Amino acid sequence: MFESAEIGHRIDKATYREAVPALRAALQQAQVALQEKKKFPVVVLVSGQDGAGKGETINLLYEWMDPRFLTTLAFSAPSDEERERPPMWRFWRSLPPKGRVGIFAGSWYSDPIRQRILDEISLKELDAQADQINRFEAMLVNEGALVLKFWFHLTQKGQIKRLKALEKDPRTAWRVTQWNWDRVKTYDKLQNAAGHLLRLTNTPWAPWVVIEGEDDRYRSLTVGQIVLQALQKKLEANDTPGFPVAPMVRVDTDHRTVLSEMDLSLSLNEKHYETELAQWQARLAELVRDPRFQNRALVCAFEGADAAGKGGAIRRIGAALDARQYQVIPVAAPTEEERAQPYLWRFWRHLPRKGRVAIFDRTWYGRVLVERVEGFCSENDWLRAYTEINDFEHELADSGVMVVKFWLQISQEEQLARFKAREQVAFKRFKITQEDWRNREKWDAYQQAVCDMVARTSTGNAPWTLVEANDKNHARVKILRTLCERIEDELDKHKKPGAKGASKKSDKSGKPSSPGPK
Amino acid sequence: MFESAEIGHRIDKATYREAVPALRAALQQAQVALQEKKKFPVVVLVSGQDGAGKGETINLLYEWMDPRFLTTLAFSAPSDEERERPPMWRFWRSLPPKGRVGIFAGSWYSDPIRQRILDEISLKELDAQADQINRFEAMLVNEGALVLKFWFHLTQKGQIKRLKALEKDPRTAWRVTQWNWDRVKTYDKLQNAAGHLLRLTNTPWAPWVVIEGEDDRYRSLTVGQIVLQALQKKLEANDTPGFPVAPMVRVDTDHRTVLSEMDLSLSLNEKHYETELAQWQARLAELVRDPRFQNRALVCAFEGADAAGKGGAIRRIGAALDARQYQVIPVAAPTEEERAQPYLWRFWRHLPRKGRVAIFDRTWYGRVLVERVEGFCSENDWLRAYTEINDFEHELADSGVMVVKFWLQISQEEQLARFKAREQVAFKRFKITQEDWRNREKWDAYQQAVCDMVARTSTGNAPWTLVEANDKNHARVKILRTLCERIEDELDKHKKPGAKGASKKSDKSGKPSSPGPK
Repeated sequence: MFESAEIGHRIDKATYREAVPALRAALQQAQVALQEKKKFPVVVLVSGQDGAGKGETINLLYEWMDPRFLTTLAFSAPSDEERERPPMWRFWRSLPPKGRVGIFAGSWYSDPIRQRILDEISLKELDAQADQINRFEAMLVNEGALVLKFWFHLTQKGQIKRLKALEKDPRTAWRVTQWNWDRVKTYDKLQNAAGHLLRLTNTPWAPWVVIEGEDDRYRSLTVGQIVLQALQKKLEANDTPGFPVAPMVRVDTDHRTVLSEMDLSLSLNEKHYETELAQWQARLAELVRDPRFQNRALVCAFEGADAAGKGGAIRRIGAALDARQYQVIPVAAPTEEERAQPYLWRFWRHLPRKGRVAIFDRTWYGRVLVERVEGFCSENDWLRAYTEINDFEHELADSGVMVVKFWLQISQEEQLARFKAREQVAFKRFKITQEDWRNREKWDAYQQAVCDMVARTSTGNAPWTLVEANDKNHARVKILRTLCERIEDELDKHKKPGAKGASKKSDKSGKPSSPGPK
Repeated sequence: MFESAEIGHRIDKATYREAVPALRAALQQAQVALQEKKKFPVVVLVSGQDGAGKGETINLLYEWMDPRFLTTLAFSAPSDEERERPPMWRFWRSLPPKGRVGIFAGSWYSDPIRQRILDEISLKELDAQADQINRFEAMLVNEGALVLKFWFHLTQKGQIKRLKALEKDPRTAWRVTQWNWDRVKTYDKLQNAAGHLLRLTNTPWAPWVVIEGEDDRYRSLTVGQIVLQALQKKLEANDTPGFPVAPMVRVDTDHRTVLSEMDLSLSLNEKHYETELAQWQARLAELVRDPRFQNRALVCAFEGADAAGKGGAIRRIGAALDARQYQVIPVAAPTEEERAQPYLWRFWRHLPRKGRVAIFDRTWYGRVLVERVEGFCSENDWLRAYTEINDFEHELADSGVMVVKFWLQISQEEQLARFKAREQVAFKRFKITQEDWRNREKWDAYQQAVCDMVARTSTGNAPWTLVEANDKNHARVKILRTLCERIEDELDKHKKPGAKGASKKSDKSGKPSSPGPK
C-alpha cells in the first residue's frame, strides 16, 4: 500500500561503510544546488513509533547534510500566540522558505493521532482531518514544495527490547522514563489510529514512506537514499506538478448576471447618511467591545475596482475601532521572504489574535482576479486557488474567526469620473497612476473574474457581500450595516468558538447576499 | 527644557477649520513620499497622562493620514513568546520597516515609569534605564529612523473635569471605571517618575514634545504640524545623523599582538582528540538538559576567516544537542525585509526561547569585520557598532541568555592549504568560491579589524575566546571545553535569571580568554 521499504532487511557494516561517503557527497551537492537555485522548499516529516529511530534519523541528516540549511521544528504545547490563532497557523509560520529544508519532528499529524488515541475524536472526524491534511499537502506540492513523509515503524517487541537496552547502559538509562513504558502499553492504539490516518493520507503528491526501524544501518541508508533521490528528481524537474485535489472545474458559464443585476443607482442622501453612519459606527464600537468578541477575531476582506471606495469604507470602519485593536493590511507586491513561501503564507502571517480585527485592503483573491486576468500565474494556479481559498477561510471560521468579504462594484463611467476628480484634489492625486488607466481597458475580463470568484467562493462560512458603490454614502452604510449584522449573528450563534460543527450552522445557501438594500 | 508646545494655548474653531485641509493634504503628500522612497521608518511614541488626548491623537493621525501605512502597537502583558526573550525583543519585533509609520501606544518608557511608581526600582535604577533608552533611540536614529516622542500633559484638575464630563454623557459613561479614578490619585507619583525620566531622555536625537492636552483643537493642530515638519525635514535631508552617544574613539592602536601572540602550532593527536571530544560532548549534552538550563538560553557566536573550521566546530556542538533544541543561523546577505530594519534586527529575530540554543555561523560582528574592511558601511556606522553590539549582548546577558563568542584563527598558509584540499573533495567543493580567494588579499586589514573587535567587545558579559584553529582537533576540543565551562559557570552563578546585578558577577577583566590551552 505504501511506498514502503521492505521489512526485516539488514545491512552489514562493510556495505554501509562503503556506501556512506558517496551518499553524503551526493546529498551535499544536491543541497548546494537547492540552496543556490532556491527553487523550492523541502518539508520532511519525521513521525512514527518511539524508539524507531526518529531522533537518530534527524541527527543523521544533520551529520550528512549542511546543518546551516536545515531547520528542525518541534511542536510541543502551543504558545499563547499560537493558541489565539487557527491550529494550522503554527505550521504555516514554520514552513521553510525556498532553498531550505525544514524537518518536522511532530506535524499536522500529531494532534489527530493523539486525539484519536484518547478517543477525543471519532473515526469519522479523523477521516475529515485526513481530507484537510491531503488538501493542505496538495497545496504545498502544487506551490512547488517537496514533501517527504517518513513513518518509522517498530514492533512492540522491538520497542521493549530497545527500552531495556537503554536502561541497562548507565549512559542512556536517564532517557527511559515511566512515560516511555506507558507508550509501549498504548502501542496498539497508536498503531490503529496512525495506520488509519496513514492509509487515508497516502496520496500521489505526498506518499508515506514507512521505514522499518530495527536495523540502524538499513534505516539510515534508506532514508538518506530516499531524500537524495527525491531531491535530485525535483531539482531536475522543470514544471510544478499541478495535482488536481478538488473539483477544479473550469469556470465557463457566464455569471456576469450577478454583477449586472446590481442596482448601481442606489444612493443615500447626506442627511440620512450622517445619521445611519453614526448609528452603525456606534453599534460596531459596541460589538467589538462585547465580552464575547474577545474570544473571537474578525477578518474583513475588501475587493473592488480601482477607485471603488475601498479606502474610504475602511476608514469608516476604523473610526469605530480602537487603533490598538485593528490593523489595516494593504496588499501590495509580495516581499522577497513572501515570494519564498506558498501563496497564502503572506496572508496567514497577518491573521489577528483573539479580540483583534484585521482589515485587508485587497486580499488573497488577487490570485483569481489580477493574477488571473494579467496572466501573472498559470491557469492551473488560479483554478486551484478557489479550493485553497475556501479551505483557508474554512479554517478561519472553524477556529472562531469571522470572515466578512465585500466586493465594491462601480460602473465604468463612475470610475472615470472619480479618476478625473482625484486629479483635482492635491492630497488624493497620488492615488491615480498609469496602471489605473491601463486596468480600465481590461474591464470585461475583470468583471468575468469577479463573477467566477463570487460564484466559487461565496460559502456559508464566508459569503460575499456585493456592494453597489457608485454612491459612496450608500456603500459605506451598507458595509457597516452588513458588518454589524454579521458580527451580531456570529456572536449569537457561535457560542463556543472552535466548537465542532458550529460553523455548519451558518447560512447554508452559500449564495452572495442579495445586492439590493434591506 | 523640552521642545515644548506652550501651555494654556487655545485655538478657535474658525482657525482650526481653515488650517486642517492644507495640513491634511501636506501630511498625505509627505506620507506618499515616505512610502515611495522607503528611505526611513517613522516611530511615533504616544505617551502621557490619561485623558490628555493620547487615543484621540492616534485617531486623528488615522483620519488625516493614509491608515494603510500606519500601524498602532499596543503593549499589554507580554505573551509567553515575549516573556521568554529579553524585554526589548517585543519592541524590536514591532519596529516599522522603512516607509511605514509605527505608532507606539505604550513603549519602552511604560515599564520603567510603572516600576518607579510602584517603588519597584530606585531612582538610580531609573537613571540606568534612561541611559539604556537613550542608547537604543540613538541607535534607531543613527540607523535612519525618525523618532517622535509625544508626552500628553493634563493637570490633575483637568483630569477630574474630563472624567466627570465623560460620566455625565450616557454614550461615554462606560469608559470611566474605578481604575481611572485610581489613576487620578496617583497623579503626583506619575508626574514625578515621568518628569524625571523625560528630563533624562530628552536627547538631541529624540527630544520630547510635551503637548498640553486640554484644548482639543490646539492639541490636534500642534501634533499634526510637528509630525508634518519632521517628516518633510527628514525627507529632504540627505545624510543620516551620526549622533555620537558613547565613547566612539577611533581605534588606532595596533592590537595585532593579540592574534600574533597565539600559538597556532597547538595540536591534539587523533587518540586524545577522540577521547576528549566524546568527553566534552557528553558533558555538553548533560548541561543543556540540566533543569537550570531550561530557564536560560544560549547564543553561540562563530567568527573566523574562510575555511577556519566554523562549520566543523558547529557540527561537533550540534552532535551533543537535540536537533529540536537548537538552531544554526547562517548569516548571509540580509533579505529585503531585513534591509528595511536597523542592522541588529535580523539577529534579534533569531534569538532563542528559554531552554534553547542558537548558533550563529557569522554574526552581528559582520559590521566591524567584512562591512568595515570592504567599505560596505561608513566609518561612523562601524565605529558606533561596537557600542551597539555591547549593548545588545548586555541585554541578552541581563535576561539570562549566555553569550559565548569564538574567533577561529588560522594562518594564511593553512588557509591556502585548506582551499586547495577542498577543491579535491567532491562534496566540499562548493565551499570554495572566487570570493574566498579575493578575501585572502585583504588578510592584514581583516586581522586589524579582528584585533579591534576583540579589544572593544570582549566584555565581562560576553568575552571572546580566541581559538588556535590550524589544528582542527585542538580547535574543536577547545571550543567544546570552553562552552561547557562557560555554561557550568553561568548555571552556578546566575541562579536567578534576569536578577539584577547577576551579570555583574561575571569575569570583570573583560579581556579575551588566554589563547593558550588549559
